[in-house]
Amino acid sequence: MNELTIPVDLNSKIHIYEQIYTYIRNEILEGRLTQGERLPSSRALAEHLQISRSTINLAYEQLLAEGYIEAVACKGYFISRVEKPLRLERVKEERKDDTEAETGYQYHFTPNGIDMKEFPYRTWRRITKEILIDDSKELFSLGMPQGDKELRETIAKYLFAARGVACTPGQIIVGAGNDYLLILLQLLLNKNSVIAFENPTYTKAYRIMESLGFDVRLMGMDENGIRVSELEHSGANVAYVMPSHQFPTGIVTSVGRRNELLKWAAQKEDRYLIEDDYDSEFRYRGKPIPSLQGMDHNGKVIYIGTFSKAIAPAIRVSYMVLPEKLMSEYEKKGCLVSSTVSRIDQKILNEFIRCGAFERHLNRMRKIYKGKHDVLLESLKGFRSKFKILGDHAGSHILPQAKYQVTEQWLSRKAGEKGIKIYCLSDYVIQEENTSMRPATVIIGYAGMEIEDIEKGIAALKAAWEI
Amino acid sequence: MNELTIPVDLNSKIHIYEQIYTYIRNEILEGRLTQGERLPSSRALAEHLQISRSTINLAYEQLLAEGYIEAVACKGYFISRVEKPLRLERVKEERKDDTEAETGYQYHFTPNGIDMKEFPYRTWRRITKEILIDDSKELFSLGMPQGDKELRETIAKYLFAARGVACTPGQIIVGAGNDYLLILLQLLLNKNSVIAFENPTYTKAYRIMESLGFDVRLMGMDENGIRVSELEHSGANVAYVMPSHQFPTGIVTSVGRRNELLKWAAQKEDRYLIEDDYDSEFRYRGKPIPSLQGMDHNGKVIYIGTFSKAIAPAIRVSYMVLPEKLMSEYEKKGCLVSSTVSRIDQKILNEFIRCGAFERHLNRMRKIYKGKHDVLLESLKGFRSKFKILGDHAGSHILPQAKYQVTEQWLSRKAGEKGIKIYCLSDYVIQEENTSMRPATVIIGYAGMEIEDIEKGIAALKAAWEI
Repeated sequence: MNELTIPVDLNSKIHIYEQIYTYIRNEILEGRLTQGERLPSSRALAEHLQISRSTINLAYEQLLAEGYIEAVACKGYFISRVEKPLRLERVKEERKDDTEAETGYQYHFTPNGIDMKEFPYRTWRRITKEILIDDSKELFSLGMPQGDKELRETIAKYLFAARGVACTPGQIIVGAGNDYLLILLQLLLNKNSVIAFENPTYTKAYRIMESLGFDVRLMGMDENGIRVSELEHSGANVAYVMPSHQFPTGIVTSVGRRNELLKWAAQKEDRYLIEDDYDSEFRYRGKPIPSLQGMDHNGKVIYIGTFSKAIAPAIRVSYMVLPEKLMSEYEKKGCLVSSTVSRIDQKILNEFIRCGAFERHLNRMRKIYKGKHDVLLESLKGFRSKFKILGDHAGSHILPQAKYQVTEQWLSRKAGEKGIKIYCLSDYVIQEENTSMRPATVIIGYAGMEIEDIEKGIAALKAAWEI
Repeated sequence: MNELTIPVDLNSKIHIYEQIYTYIRNEILEGRLTQGERLPSSRALAEHLQISRSTINLAYEQLLAEGYIEAVACKGYFISRVEKPLRLERVKEERKDDTEAETGYQYHFTPNGIDMKEFPYRTWRRITKEILIDDSKELFSLGMPQGDKELRETIAKYLFAARGVACTPGQIIVGAGNDYLLILLQLLLNKNSVIAFENPTYTKAYRIMESLGFDVRLMGMDENGIRVSELEHSGANVAYVMPSHQFPTGIVTSVGRRNELLKWAAQKEDRYLIEDDYDSEFRYRGKPIPSLQGMDHNGKVIYIGTFSKAIAPAIRVSYMVLPEKLMSEYEKKGCLVSSTVSRIDQKILNEFIRCGAFERHLNRMRKIYKGKHDVLLESLKGFRSKFKILGDHAGSHILPQAKYQVTEQWLSRKAGEKGIKIYCLSDYVIQEENTSMRPATVIIGYAGMEIEDIEKGIAALKAAWEI
């Protein structure tokens, strides 16, 4: 075939070679040019269309690169076998884009709130600017999978001073959020691991571990923490615990229970404790509760902490301290995964901690949250005859526990009717057999609320609950 | 017991309550105060030590919070049962901190290089500054797990225009790097999936999938791409392919082979194709090769792309386009995982693309890389009698293939002796049975090198290889 009359539009914005390419491609796709047919030589087609030969060559090269045609030495270009795609019915429905959930409540007492009004934006901006001024290639190049050495050194120092965590920078893995670190951890743990959780717990961690295919188990708790006696008979080899301030119960694992936990872990080679130390920075009376990791002498604790709570949720930087044995697993498998935190962010955060801004921010927030906490407790004074207040003096929520016969559902519904959002303990209990076994307990978060709203909201709650 | 003579140092920087707390805690830990013993009342101890009662109360509360003592109503504080931790021998060895690998080569022809001299630092800084000026709480709050809606809209538009990818913003998942997205993907795929890879391939993706516990298989390739005939008998239900520009071979999967692949995927419910479109932005002749995703009418292609290659490795932003069916899996499991990219970074990137800076940067880099590519090809002219040059006109490396009897190891060793680092095709081949079956092929990357170094390095290589 030497005739191929392609309607070329010289005035089109589409390059001529592309017009030719598209024309021939469509001829092939629609079956008008079929397998084995020979294309005209570029010289012949160029003459026929009165177009430069190099333009034709460009079109042919594109067809060749995409496999529509084949070149046979000394013979020319031939149409390839282009199999027709099997075409099933396509669901053409446009996916509705989910927008962030609007609460629609006047008073939203979420336990996950953070007071972002108080974030030191100016300091953060100044550090960002200073770091970006230095337009080094290094800043924009891929760093170590574990995270920048300087940042890990800073974190190690901070953890030792603030949390009693004993580790070298080499044991720290920096990652974009706790959820990510848990996912990374799966690469290091035995695939057949059975993971025990406190019940109630941070349900997201439970669901993630479950989704990853781990066998997950639920353990009961008492006022000293997770029941090690249950753990011993559970078949679990990993326990996910929040010893410094359990979420959501606020229970501090007692030193005796901690030792029992460490002893349990030390009894078998593949046993580990995952210590999620999510908000230990916020304690409003006495000193911070020391970490479990600092009490461990057998390399059994995987310590996870985050800057999302203490700085801002958008700062996607968490860290994990691995015991020696898991560190060597990390070096085999985990370090395959490139760092999930940009170097710029790592440098900003490092400088933010190093220059003392982080400590100042923490001290400031501790005061602000304590102020809100105190106002909340004061506002709840009238509730004391009917409720016992649990989980106070730390974190960002408290738990009023009913002393009378009432259900969490009723408390939550009545609050909702007055535009008040509170949470139920049962929201965090996984597989509850018998709710009526324990007193109704609700969760009231305060960190993200204005003081005025706390007062008004609790007054409204009093009316809603008929107290 | 009412006597507890605690040596309090009034001049110490350590708060008195903390000195008392520490003293009693150590007495308990060292067995001098034992389970069941009663502590003196705070009033008695305060008098005994001539210290305020509130200080004593603070110390007792801390001991209580940590579980060293228990309160018995109307009776006082008693020492708890504190089990001694089982202490194994601890390996006290300091872990050596790994520093970034220094190459020590004078000419390092890595295929992963990027020219960071040309990064538009000024524009990036300006956008960062503009975004940070607006100190909205929203910027520092946790966004949607999928990524910011605005960024996903921008990516969807870009992908449609540049790559022919047809998707809604709702199908896009933004994540911190391709490695992370693969790990996230595991939550959505059947746990028993068998994943086929092209061989040679991007070995990191292979190792990650293997580490995640998937059964991984290797498929042969020919000049049209992965061999679908092998795929059909492999038992695989997922194939990881790089159809636009295979790494490292540079092979473009032909349109016929693409249709075969799509047909294979359409035949069974749980079959999927993972299209890794890692560097399709860089093609130096003709138009970009269209994506496989754009040819798919059955929701079978999982499309993965990244900004790390086109912008900078430190920009930890990749994206994954999921077909409808996997999107509903994502909504069940994947969205448990909070976004791994900070909102600030998402906003900066969004603005960088939206304002046209990304396109300008791409055009600029395409020219710069093409310039380096041309210099490299020119420098290799003298090699043509002994080597066939494969994989040119796209990406950031080429593959000289020996026409004579020589091993890749010899070529690499000889180069190394002259301070030149080149790579062997076998570095990317997993489980090679018989290396002697194929001609020796090396990989020469150029994107990150200076033009002068390319010329000098190749001249040195010529001498090293005795050409």
